[in-house]
Amino acid sequence: LAVALALAAAVALAAWRRRRPRPVREVLFFPSPPSCTESLLAEAAEPGAAVRPCPCPLPRGDCSLSRLLRLLLSARRSLDICLFAFCSPQLGRAVQLLHRRGVRVRVVTDAQYMGLRGSQIGLLRHVGIQVRHDQEDGYMHHKFAIVDRKMLITGSLNWTTQAIQNNRENVLVVEDAEYVEPFLDEFERIWEEYNPTNYRYF
Amino acid sequence: LAVALALAAAVALAAWRRRRPRPVREVLFFPSPPSCTESLLAEAAEPGAAVRPCPCPLPRGDCSLSRLLRLLLSARRSLDICLFAFCSPQLGRAVQLLHRRGVRVRVVTDAQYMGLRGSQIGLLRHVGIQVRHDQEDGYMHHKFAIVDRKMLITGSLNWTTQAIQNNRENVLVVEDAEYVEPFLDEFERIWEEYNPTNYRYF
Repeated sequence: LAVALALAAAVALAAWRRRRPRPVREVLFFPSPPSCTESLLAEAAEPGAAVRPCPCPLPRGDCSLSRLLRLLLSARRSLDICLFAFCSPQLGRAVQLLHRRGVRVRVVTDAQYMGLRGSQIGLLRHVGIQVRHDQEDGYMHHKFAIVDRKMLITGSLNWTTQAIQNNRENVLVVEDAEYVEPFLDEFERIWEEYNPTNYRYF
Repeated sequence: LAVALALAAAVALAAWRRRRPRPVREVLFFPSPPSCTESLLAEAAEPGAAVRPCPCPLPRGDCSLSRLLRLLLSARRSLDICLFAFCSPQLGRAVQLLHRRGVRVRVVTDAQYMGLRGSQIGLLRHVGIQVRHDQEDGYMHHKFAIVDRKMLITGSLNWTTQAIQNNRENVLVVEDAEYVEPFLDEFERIWEEYNPTNYRYF
């Protein structure tokens, strides 16, 4: 009887483990070769709609950029972004798309770099996404995003085409709470500290 | 008998788990307040020797910088460093100290930034540490180190006093092989690609 019970317990445990999705653990390296992300973004904008193939000559295969886009587009409830520089038009489109889909998007960025040529920050604000920035001498140098308060995307990568296509960069994707929770706290701390009611005007 | 066997197995498993050291999992945030790391570095240089207290007025408490130094100084066999910018004198001293202690240190850095004012790269080369750099248009923008091929230290932080004391930065410390191994491979790939025999002279 004891043996039978032990066996049954082991089988139940194995089944439970199989049902529980394994936490995402990934490493992406850059540069990512120039590639066409049109169909990926169009499909995400109108799921199920017939997507007209893009006529551009760029390759369409999987790459680090398309993987990063897919992970971000998996957001259902919230996306918290903390980025030194944000200039990539593809990543900007993905973030706008999530905002339109009703995902709560919040962006923290660096005051000196948000006016950079090609910066997406103005466009994000224009469509109604909340953006806050520092007022400090130091840089807001973080490069992380948190999807649905449970998936952390962090590393050396600024979201710029230069970094994506030309630099050696890394991005870690982590769902372990030991890492995600300190970053959630850091985001909330910075978000409150950079509240516009604290801005000083000279 | 079956119950006794199952119990014995459970006890043995628990004991084995307890003996196996838990993998290090940490998150460090910056800025780290200016602090005195003299005694930490002096103690690491001559373990057991009487360390004369530093007369400087800076606080000596634990902070993100002292924690980063301790993790690096735990290296026994190897330290592989891949850094966009390396100017921090404290971190430079720690790396030189490990080199003198017989740890195999290798450094990869960015060609455009290694000549920066205050760069440690020349000093490291001067004491005989191997340094390699890119010859590309893009930046070698990684900011990671691997201790003894098993502990990954990575994030947004360049090893500069500006970043340590003034910027919002993060560093993750990871011992999970799923993350460490891709970074080991990336380091070896870059190390070989940046072999001086591949340098072009114009």
